[in-house]
Amino acid sequence: MPFLEICLTPAEPGARECAGAAVAVIDVLRATTSMCTALMNGARSVIPVETVEELKAYAGKGCLLAGERECEKLAFADFGNSPDEFTAERVAGRDIVFTTTNCTRVIRQAASGHVVLLASFLNLTAVCDRLVQENRRTVLLCAGWHDRFCLEDTLLAGAMAERLCRAGFEPLYDAVPAALDLWRQASGDLMAYAGRFSHQARLARIGKAHVIRGCLTSDTTTLVPELRNGAFRTV
Amino acid sequence: MPFLEICLTPAEPGARECAGAAVAVIDVLRATTSMCTALMNGARSVIPVETVEELKAYAGKGCLLAGERECEKLAFADFGNSPDEFTAERVAGRDIVFTTTNCTRVIRQAASGHVVLLASFLNLTAVCDRLVQENRRTVLLCAGWHDRFCLEDTLLAGAMAERLCRAGFEPLYDAVPAALDLWRQASGDLMAYAGRFSHQARLARIGKAHVIRGCLTSDTTTLVPELRNGAFRTV
Repeated sequence: MPFLEICLTPAEPGARECAGAAVAVIDVLRATTSMCTALMNGARSVIPVETVEELKAYAGKGCLLAGERECEKLAFADFGNSPDEFTAERVAGRDIVFTTTNCTRVIRQAASGHVVLLASFLNLTAVCDRLVQENRRTVLLCAGWHDRFCLEDTLLAGAMAERLCRAGFEPLYDAVPAALDLWRQASGDLMAYAGRFSHQARLARIGKAHVIRGCLTSDTTTLVPELRNGAFRTV
Repeated sequence: MPFLEICLTPAEPGARECAGAAVAVIDVLRATTSMCTALMNGARSVIPVETVEELKAYAGKGCLLAGERECEKLAFADFGNSPDEFTAERVAGRDIVFTTTNCTRVIRQAASGHVVLLASFLNLTAVCDRLVQENRRTVLLCAGWHDRFCLEDTLLAGAMAERLCRAGFEPLYDAVPAALDLWRQASGDLMAYAGRFSHQARLARIGKAHVIRGCLTSDTTTLVPELRNGAFRTV
């Protein structure tokens, strides 16, 4: 059966070993949740870019712009990085160019993967089913916070590892049992456990703590965004 | 109260932010346990060096040489990296030059700290008491495995965080609650939990799995090795 690795931060070496693997990018608070939401709500594509300059270069070209740094919306952008902004009214049929503090850099690291998917709690079962179907070495790549470990991404990785190990994937290295144990501890009452997240305090400071509940809600969609020619689409 | 950060791997940014902090270096299997054992058994000092070449340069100069790469003893060295090698008969009164796969590199990263200590389960309470006494920003720096997360170092960091938080240290970032939760889950039967360690399999392959029990035994010494002028001594 294929190997499963979890990279708890993009600084772990596995993040540089994505070539040939199925890679799921995880940034629960909030980038991959926002991107999944936009695509659920009918956006045609999500185009990740790494820098603010790249995002600016898309201005006036018919795309919508989503930009966030250190939790805050970039002033010139149409959206920040909060799932509740990406309503059907605003995004249906549109291409959205996206840059965030941590996630879009991680997507670049993942891009050498054989297949690169966006994972969030929203599409937990669907993305796991797709990885089982791929049946190849799998890397769950947590965006973390500036190369530091973060709990919410680890918990989703644990929830995914639970499903993938049950399907016979073989865990490599210690991050898999750690994520599984943390997930088992947290999953009984995920919102109560969220009190431990450093990122909860950061979101509270910008008045966005209310989005956490939605970001921790499982299986509201069966869509699995996949990177093709530089954009995420749902096939 | 002072801040407490845990770096789960030396690739986390906190490992480059040791200047001015009290730093405890953690490599439970096996480097910091071996170094503590050598000093418990009467070694005069432990001199960490990063490369095999540096270790060789000490040959014939009156020091004992300890060298390990990828779990295996270096052929020209007097010792590998197993605590049971550092008996009083062999080490009392001697200076031991030491290089290991992961730990000696981490010690170099820690060296800018205001105070740099060796932590192992063997001196758990003593090293925590010393950190409480220092009463300054504290970094628990896990050696990990080639920049990957490893469970046994995280568990010791969790055991230390439990004591330090009880003494009023203020946790920074998510690695502290994660290490605490893993420690609380594992501490009831640490030897049973050791079945999850990837490093257990590596040690079993070289016939050294039997040292794990000793490496997970708490408070067999009150010595706290401290780095001064390039060598660890117990004051």
